[in-house]
Amino acid sequence: MSLLATGATIGIIGGGQLGRLLAMAAARLGYRTVVLEPDAEAPAAQVANDQIVAAYDDSQALARLAKVADVVTYEFENVPVEAIEWLERYVPVRPGSRALRVAQDRLAEKTLARRLDARTAQFAPVNDSADLASAIQLTGLPAVLKTTRLGYDGKGQAKILCHADAAPALAAMNGRTAILESFVDFDIEVSVVAARGVDGRIAAYDVSENVHRNHILHTSTIPSRLGPAAKAEAVAIAGRIADDLGYVGVFAVEFFAVRQDAGHELLVNEIAPRVHNSGHWTEAACAVSQFEQHIRAVVGLPLGNPDRHSDCVMENLIGDDVLTLGHLAKEANCVIHLYGKAEARPGRKMGHVTRIRPRA
Amino acid sequence: MSLLATGATIGIIGGGQLGRLLAMAAARLGYRTVVLEPDAEAPAAQVANDQIVAAYDDSQALARLAKVADVVTYEFENVPVEAIEWLERYVPVRPGSRALRVAQDRLAEKTLARRLDARTAQFAPVNDSADLASAIQLTGLPAVLKTTRLGYDGKGQAKILCHADAAPALAAMNGRTAILESFVDFDIEVSVVAARGVDGRIAAYDVSENVHRNHILHTSTIPSRLGPAAKAEAVAIAGRIADDLGYVGVFAVEFFAVRQDAGHELLVNEIAPRVHNSGHWTEAACAVSQFEQHIRAVVGLPLGNPDRHSDCVMENLIGDDVLTLGHLAKEANCVIHLYGKAEARPGRKMGHVTRIRPRA
Repeated sequence: MSLLATGATIGIIGGGQLGRLLAMAAARLGYRTVVLEPDAEAPAAQVANDQIVAAYDDSQALARLAKVADVVTYEFENVPVEAIEWLERYVPVRPGSRALRVAQDRLAEKTLARRLDARTAQFAPVNDSADLASAIQLTGLPAVLKTTRLGYDGKGQAKILCHADAAPALAAMNGRTAILESFVDFDIEVSVVAARGVDGRIAAYDVSENVHRNHILHTSTIPSRLGPAAKAEAVAIAGRIADDLGYVGVFAVEFFAVRQDAGHELLVNEIAPRVHNSGHWTEAACAVSQFEQHIRAVVGLPLGNPDRHSDCVMENLIGDDVLTLGHLAKEANCVIHLYGKAEARPGRKMGHVTRIRPRA
Repeated sequence: MSLLATGATIGIIGGGQLGRLLAMAAARLGYRTVVLEPDAEAPAAQVANDQIVAAYDDSQALARLAKVADVVTYEFENVPVEAIEWLERYVPVRPGSRALRVAQDRLAEKTLARRLDARTAQFAPVNDSADLASAIQLTGLPAVLKTTRLGYDGKGQAKILCHADAAPALAAMNGRTAILESFVDFDIEVSVVAARGVDGRIAAYDVSENVHRNHILHTSTIPSRLGPAAKAEAVAIAGRIADDLGYVGVFAVEFFAVRQDAGHELLVNEIAPRVHNSGHWTEAACAVSQFEQHIRAVVGLPLGNPDRHSDCVMENLIGDDVLTLGHLAKEANCVIHLYGKAEARPGRKMGHVTRIRPRA
């Protein structure tokens, strides 16, 4: 597939806020979008040209998507790999099933990172109590037990602070394959959001420094406090991962940055095969946002310049935070973005704001 | 009406690119949109939550719009005033019929400007050849004869360079009321895009310097070459006009700037009661675009800060210009915006780009 002309249709699997932001970016480049999503009032469905209202693994819906879309992408990594593999036989899917398969499995993710000469926390697979006992030998305590699949925003995780926590933590995995990871005493969390084009070129945004609250991203600050060498290393690791996966589109690599001598040692924590919450600031501070960058990669356009015109702090609006809209609107240089969700449930991502300031 | 909460519905009359950009700005603030527009594939219909597919003066459609919308706005000034007056009885319409009535009539527009101590070209109403002869006495030649209503992008205009041009120019008006305006030997064309909130506060973007080609806006450059005194005067005139009209929303005032001594004398040319092509740059160079600013005014949110973070040049993509997307995408710091129009007809506005650079 060469460059898709404007007016072509991009299929987006998933109708959440990331799909919404992708659909709006696609519209700005003149592309049409069709969203596969069971909820007819989902954020992305509100702004897309069309919607296929169906489950992500509905075979008739997938067949219809393959028929109407010139290229397909997805907005979240818990799409069934089988659905993507089936689609790939009929329509280009970017990124493809290979990246998805790795990103869905914490073991595969960390194994890939190690193979590409990136550091990670100590880790070991855990299927039963014998595994867990030997895994604790490797990681020491405290450690974190996580399901290898379908975890996000802290779901499917249990801390093991002492040996007495081991059995309840294992029980909480509900028989699913798990991974035990050593507890990392990090200084800061950072991420690289980058794109890889069909031509293999990579464009990385500057490293974001991320603060989480209750396992949900709270703020991303750009520039981060990472030194130049560590920044360059983070971007290089992201590039090696994308090259290895033959990736096309925007992705994020999250790192723990551990204090070491004058600088930081980086440990790969997660790979997200999609646009990422820690890249939302790009729509306020760059000429080309991560959402447009992803669309550019997916349709075969040249990637945009990832430089930023402003420094900034992105803050998520969680639950009732969204009710402060009237106050937020009074702030100068505050770029507001809400997602059109009707109900402000606790812990639900309702929108984000990016406060910009001239570059230091 | 106080502040409309997010999730409220904004009715937009007109489905062109301005409606599209308004609908996307509304979505970013969490508002829903319903577009009244006869073309089901119109640019705004593609991104709005809902569409009422009907003519702008269809009474059943207007009744439906009044029912589903919490507030109504319009994206072009050729909406029938009667439709807006009818709607105003049932739902807030911003801006209202008063501004629309003035902006639809070049005579009323220029008369208002004069009353508010702003200069204009010499002008006189023309209904027949006797009017035209005496009007020419006032304006001198060359002059421009224009229909008072429904003219845009140079349509409904005829130049009168010598007396022999008078009769054909009058014939070209097809019996419609016209206005003869003296030909202005301007140095540059500039415009002010500003917003007036429900509280009467005004927020003006910096003056844009505009170049037209074939009567269609070609580029807007910010900052303009206007001196500080003339800039302040342009903004002050825009404010007086908006105050006088009790205006709520974004509007534009276009001026001819005539060389005078060291600076420029400003003549009001047109008033547009809507977001304006010469304000498209704001989405690339400001935290709050003219589109979001209009939505803020319409729903009763505080107006955003109109300062810009970057200098820039906006360029319209007309007709086949849109085919250069692949090249435009290679430019650093070029913000692209296409309108989703299927057919690139000559003279048709297909999109725009804004090239940003650090502030001088």
